[in-house]
Amino acid sequence: MSDPKIGIYGLGTMGAALALNMADKGIAIAASNRTASVIPEFMERAGDLAENITAVDDLKALIDALPKPRNLLAMIPSTGPMDAFLDDVIPMLEAGDTVIDAGNADFHSTRARAARLAEHDLHFVGLGVSGGEEGARHGPSMMMGGTDHSWSELKPVLEKIAAKFDGAPCVDHLGPDGAGHFVKTVHNGIEYADMQVIAETYDILRNGLGMDLPAVADQFDAWNDGPLGSYLMEITAKVLRYDDPETGKPAVDVIRDSAGQKGTGRWTVIEAVKLGQSATMIEAAVAGRAWSAEKPLRELAAKAFGEDRGALDLDVTTIEAALRVARVLEYAQGFRILKAASDEYDWNLDPARIAEIWRAGCIIRAKMLDDISAAFRDGAPEGQLLLASAFRDTIQDGIPALRQVVGTAVAAGLPVPALASALAWYDTMRQSRGTANVVQAQRDFFGRHGFERLDAEGAHHGPWWD
Amino acid sequence: MSDPKIGIYGLGTMGAALALNMADKGIAIAASNRTASVIPEFMERAGDLAENITAVDDLKALIDALPKPRNLLAMIPSTGPMDAFLDDVIPMLEAGDTVIDAGNADFHSTRARAARLAEHDLHFVGLGVSGGEEGARHGPSMMMGGTDHSWSELKPVLEKIAAKFDGAPCVDHLGPDGAGHFVKTVHNGIEYADMQVIAETYDILRNGLGMDLPAVADQFDAWNDGPLGSYLMEITAKVLRYDDPETGKPAVDVIRDSAGQKGTGRWTVIEAVKLGQSATMIEAAVAGRAWSAEKPLRELAAKAFGEDRGALDLDVTTIEAALRVARVLEYAQGFRILKAASDEYDWNLDPARIAEIWRAGCIIRAKMLDDISAAFRDGAPEGQLLLASAFRDTIQDGIPALRQVVGTAVAAGLPVPALASALAWYDTMRQSRGTANVVQAQRDFFGRHGFERLDAEGAHHGPWWD
Repeated sequence: MSDPKIGIYGLGTMGAALALNMADKGIAIAASNRTASVIPEFMERAGDLAENITAVDDLKALIDALPKPRNLLAMIPSTGPMDAFLDDVIPMLEAGDTVIDAGNADFHSTRARAARLAEHDLHFVGLGVSGGEEGARHGPSMMMGGTDHSWSELKPVLEKIAAKFDGAPCVDHLGPDGAGHFVKTVHNGIEYADMQVIAETYDILRNGLGMDLPAVADQFDAWNDGPLGSYLMEITAKVLRYDDPETGKPAVDVIRDSAGQKGTGRWTVIEAVKLGQSATMIEAAVAGRAWSAEKPLRELAAKAFGEDRGALDLDVTTIEAALRVARVLEYAQGFRILKAASDEYDWNLDPARIAEIWRAGCIIRAKMLDDISAAFRDGAPEGQLLLASAFRDTIQDGIPALRQVVGTAVAAGLPVPALASALAWYDTMRQSRGTANVVQAQRDFFGRHGFERLDAEGAHHGPWWD
Repeated sequence: MSDPKIGIYGLGTMGAALALNMADKGIAIAASNRTASVIPEFMERAGDLAENITAVDDLKALIDALPKPRNLLAMIPSTGPMDAFLDDVIPMLEAGDTVIDAGNADFHSTRARAARLAEHDLHFVGLGVSGGEEGARHGPSMMMGGTDHSWSELKPVLEKIAAKFDGAPCVDHLGPDGAGHFVKTVHNGIEYADMQVIAETYDILRNGLGMDLPAVADQFDAWNDGPLGSYLMEITAKVLRYDDPETGKPAVDVIRDSAGQKGTGRWTVIEAVKLGQSATMIEAAVAGRAWSAEKPLRELAAKAFGEDRGALDLDVTTIEAALRVARVLEYAQGFRILKAASDEYDWNLDPARIAEIWRAGCIIRAKMLDDISAAFRDGAPEGQLLLASAFRDTIQDGIPALRQVVGTAVAAGLPVPALASALAWYDTMRQSRGTANVVQAQRDFFGRHGFERLDAEGAHHGPWWD
């Protein structure tokens, strides 16, 4: 067996899947885990792939198994355990070695850790990995932040294990330190928005239009075959068709309507707001999950106010057009956050490249991403997807449909927070003259905050008001 | 002249106003400022009130002028300058002394500073002050966080200078360290939402219904005389009536439609999300300000997509009912954040008391706050204003109106992000069975995140999907 190219530390669901993916692609690896008892089970699962895996009992042995400069990928919780791991591993490493955090880290932590390792002439990579266990095992989309040195070390490995879109690997070096983890965070934010829009659409179809569950699943399948094709659309159809083996009922009818969240959606909202952005569709999705967890409160409110909704008079082609524009707008909001962060941190992020590596392997992979990538390559005005000529028709055709869907749902009492947010954003942005003059006048009235004038430069003030 | 009861450091707009308020109420104070040249101007402005003011040249002299235990109020920027000030002042103080930060501080900073001062047996108070310069001068609403010792020291001063509602001073000791600044932050978040709702309503009246500006002002005045009466409603009418002295045009027509923000709205959004809450009306208002700043982008989008809106067929009584329910919902969202923070930090905040001290002096003072206070005293189910029986009728009567306003605006293309968010929240919360089952099924499909069942306890998982 040749020298291991990389060490994997942490053989949980995602770490094991990445390790097996590498071994499967003929990459020699070394592997270990904090709890050594996991290792024999992992090697048994590896089967024939074990020939590419050097399994060792502890971190020290893992490091000793790696040729220099070493590349050590940790798939452990990116919070306290990652810092404790770094405490242990830093003294064992030598100048030029690279440590990779392949978890969903807060990019601020990744920046701090990269700075910490740089003091020891070590490299720290924040690697965003999307695609779930299945993706990690057979081809994830990966967003790498780190040094050029680390990229030259890792590129051959990552390109081999990455998902491929028309043969092109869905991985790239996006920027320094936290850039990869930030892009992964926003990826997840977009994922939240897309899932919320799908959930609202499910509600419209099933409860607004009165379709039965197999018909709703068929509709998602049909959309998946068209321009709305995406992984989330595809799995929604599957999820809706699945019957609970215990009761024989549709699975979605036995699953409690309370969704969890692990933090990346919230991070996206917080970072967007800190950057002076507001990604309202992602905010709506994060809100939707928070409110879903308050089921006892919703039950009380349903008793107090009634939970009836009217029937919705909509056809599915209208809904499809509305969904298409909603997806454009959710991506547009996501890419605005990336642009703002790129400006703030001097990352020089390439939105076209990011769209490209999202075309396969990741949870938000969608046919539309190929068009988004092309639109950014063509040069979107002000870097705004909203203004890209490639999407002009989709938006202009889709907005009346979105307006009809939101208006109908609002009238019937069916909640569509994400779809309504999409429309509110579009309608706000297309007003060259908004209403913030009133807000700014109020602010100057009570707080002397000043205002700008339309007819002159500079900041202006009262005393106007006596 | 009697011994000064309190020292004021920082004689800018707000500091000077608070100092003059104290002197006006017969409270002997000492006052100073980092730049000493400001002091004579301040004393000149003080006029006859100077007899209650001991003006001194520097911080050391200010501290020497105070009887022990000392109470020293700083009105300086609550960011770096406050920490630098604490570096200077801590060695000059003695055990038992209190330092008060009366600015808009991030409550996390206030908590850290209180802990820092406690190590020296010093007390640190975070004092939220609302009402702008006018309020500070003649009667602000004040939200105090700090120790019982500091409250017993400050209570006589603060109750004298506070705004009064039916004779009751609008100030109280709400909790320890950062509690006062947190409540002030959420106060400002609610203020953002209320201003955004008013701006949307202005748009509806002026551009949707085609009313001329004096008629819009008259309408706000009329609403101000009814149950919607509030400071922001009152000043909106004044603002709309004001003519720009330079051009003779209405002031709002020369003010640029770009609103600033100083951070408290964003903090509210961020802290809400961190606490697992989502205050979507405040999010919409923060978003509205962010988008207002992007005027060049809006001008491009207006060219690309057109900015025409249809006329709105609504009567003003419908709009009034919609505004009433929107205000209930914005307060309800704000008080949810307070409840979540109170639980998280063990503050034991009393929502009824907070509503009471907001009834006069502060920017969000409104007739409705007296009812809100009474509703919380009666005991709102689960601590939720949404479920308070006192607001049942307002909500049930108002929702059809809000539905009509939002639906009509959506159809016409007039952006109503905050009003639409209010309705989406209400419609989500009154569904005992939502759609997060679909989201949770998707999450288990791609990420094995698990789900709960309606018919059994505990966490459940695939392998359901092959």
